[in-house]
Amino acid sequence: LGRVRYRMGEFKHLVVAQFKEGVEVKDILKGMEQLVSEIDTVKTFEWGQDIESHDMLRQGFTHVFLMTFENKEAFTSFLGHPKHIEFSGIFSEAIQKVVLLDFPTAFVKSKA
Amino acid sequence: LGRVRYRMGEFKHLVVAQFKEGVEVKDILKGMEQLVSEIDTVKTFEWGQDIESHDMLRQGFTHVFLMTFENKEAFTSFLGHPKHIEFSGIFSEAIQKVVLLDFPTAFVKSKA
Repeated sequence: LGRVRYRMGEFKHLVVAQFKEGVEVKDILKGMEQLVSEIDTVKTFEWGQDIESHDMLRQGFTHVFLMTFENKEAFTSFLGHPKHIEFSGIFSEAIQKVVLLDFPTAFVKSKA
Repeated sequence: LGRVRYRMGEFKHLVVAQFKEGVEVKDILKGMEQLVSEIDTVKTFEWGQDIESHDMLRQGFTHVFLMTFENKEAFTSFLGHPKHIEFSGIFSEAIQKVVLLDFPTAFVKSKA
């Protein structure tokens, strides 16, 4: 498969969300940024708002939040962190619906 | 916010899927690896299978596929690529349900 390379080990936490009407997503994001900046086991944090997909395909979901951890242990420690637990309460109040998936990452292609 | 850094420009294509019973996910993955290795505009391709989240949280979804492109134009060109169109047909046949989101990436935290 040519340039394809494999890399294992990292663990990811994916959140796909639709917010309740009237929710200030900016405020939620601010809280999330604060959270990941304060907790050292969060290696990377990326997010995005869908601008392309048809409504039929995104099924009402609008936002993606993706955190990367060194390994599963780092993720587990994040889950139990008091600041994460506190923020989860705020986040749960703000969402209409949500899908969460937690998985070890398989990199199939990774160009520099 | 301390070490937090921002970076913009990249465009991501996220697929969250549940496969039909009896589908050989290995075969689907093989086709996907082939696809991303053959199409140059796909910068990175990662995937994972949920091993952690409660069923209530993942709502039946089991797999995550995430592609990164240099920019939106590269993604649009990928969408129209004959090999992508061909593979989309195979993929659609294999899935029970799916959520797709396409978004420019905002990096809030990115440790080396």
